[in-house]
Amino acid sequence: MLTRIDHIGIACFDLDKTVEFYRATYGFEVYHSEVNEEQGVREAMLKINSTDDGGASYLQLLEPVREDSTVAKWLAKNGEGVHHIAFGTADVDADAADIKDKGVRVLYPEPRIGSMGSRITFLHPKDCGGVLTELVTSAPPESSEH
Amino acid sequence: MLTRIDHIGIACFDLDKTVEFYRATYGFEVYHSEVNEEQGVREAMLKINSTDDGGASYLQLLEPVREDSTVAKWLAKNGEGVHHIAFGTADVDADAADIKDKGVRVLYPEPRIGSMGSRITFLHPKDCGGVLTELVTSAPPESSEH
Repeated sequence: MLTRIDHIGIACFDLDKTVEFYRATYGFEVYHSEVNEEQGVREAMLKINSTDDGGASYLQLLEPVREDSTVAKWLAKNGEGVHHIAFGTADVDADAADIKDKGVRVLYPEPRIGSMGSRITFLHPKDCGGVLTELVTSAPPESSEH
Repeated sequence: MLTRIDHIGIACFDLDKTVEFYRATYGFEVYHSEVNEEQGVREAMLKINSTDDGGASYLQLLEPVREDSTVAKWLAKNGEGVHHIAFGTADVDADAADIKDKGVRVLYPEPRIGSMGSRITFLHPKDCGGVLTELVTSAPPESSEH
């Protein structure tokens, strides 16, 4: 069951500049940053609020680190902006299977590793009203490093 | 101070069909619906979670009700997808003034009425890394009808 807006993924050309925009304009601070080689992105997570399922909602700022990454291709086509949205669940495997059974294309056969050791998958935007939609299960607290 | 992701605004051509997609796929239910004549939209708010500032995070599904509305023009150019993101604050007037002082264009001279009697304004997407960004102060509980 999806229990929170986990994050909004925002694609940018210059991560440092975008982090500074969000800090200077709104006071949002970087909670965590990492490079995800598989996704081909450098990212910063800005924690905005906690949620009543024990999780949190973040902005995820994404800069591509290689030209063949999906985010690089998306930026070349669309320019900077909202790239995807993500819902949090305690069980990404079960929700992905359930949603696949309903006829929505799930992009990964098995969840992959996302921000902060989470397990993630994506749903095809053409099956979701134009919205690239991610499902996220956070890492257990003991294995989360930030 | 911005204290939550208040909502993600998603533009669609057919509100009823999109509401049904979110219900059937994820189990999200309509919390509130209304027509905002000034904005030229029919909308449904799906509550996803509560937030630690006493508010909540929603998906806001938007269908234009007239061809000259900004959402209708946006859909004609972009197709369906994420139209804007919104941050919640206890004082939209103060935050809008503060952000304007930082050189970000605020689209309304004074906040207007948004979903569920909230007071809202928007920041120019060209000043916000391509992200149309809304600021929202919820209506007091006693005047909120849904």
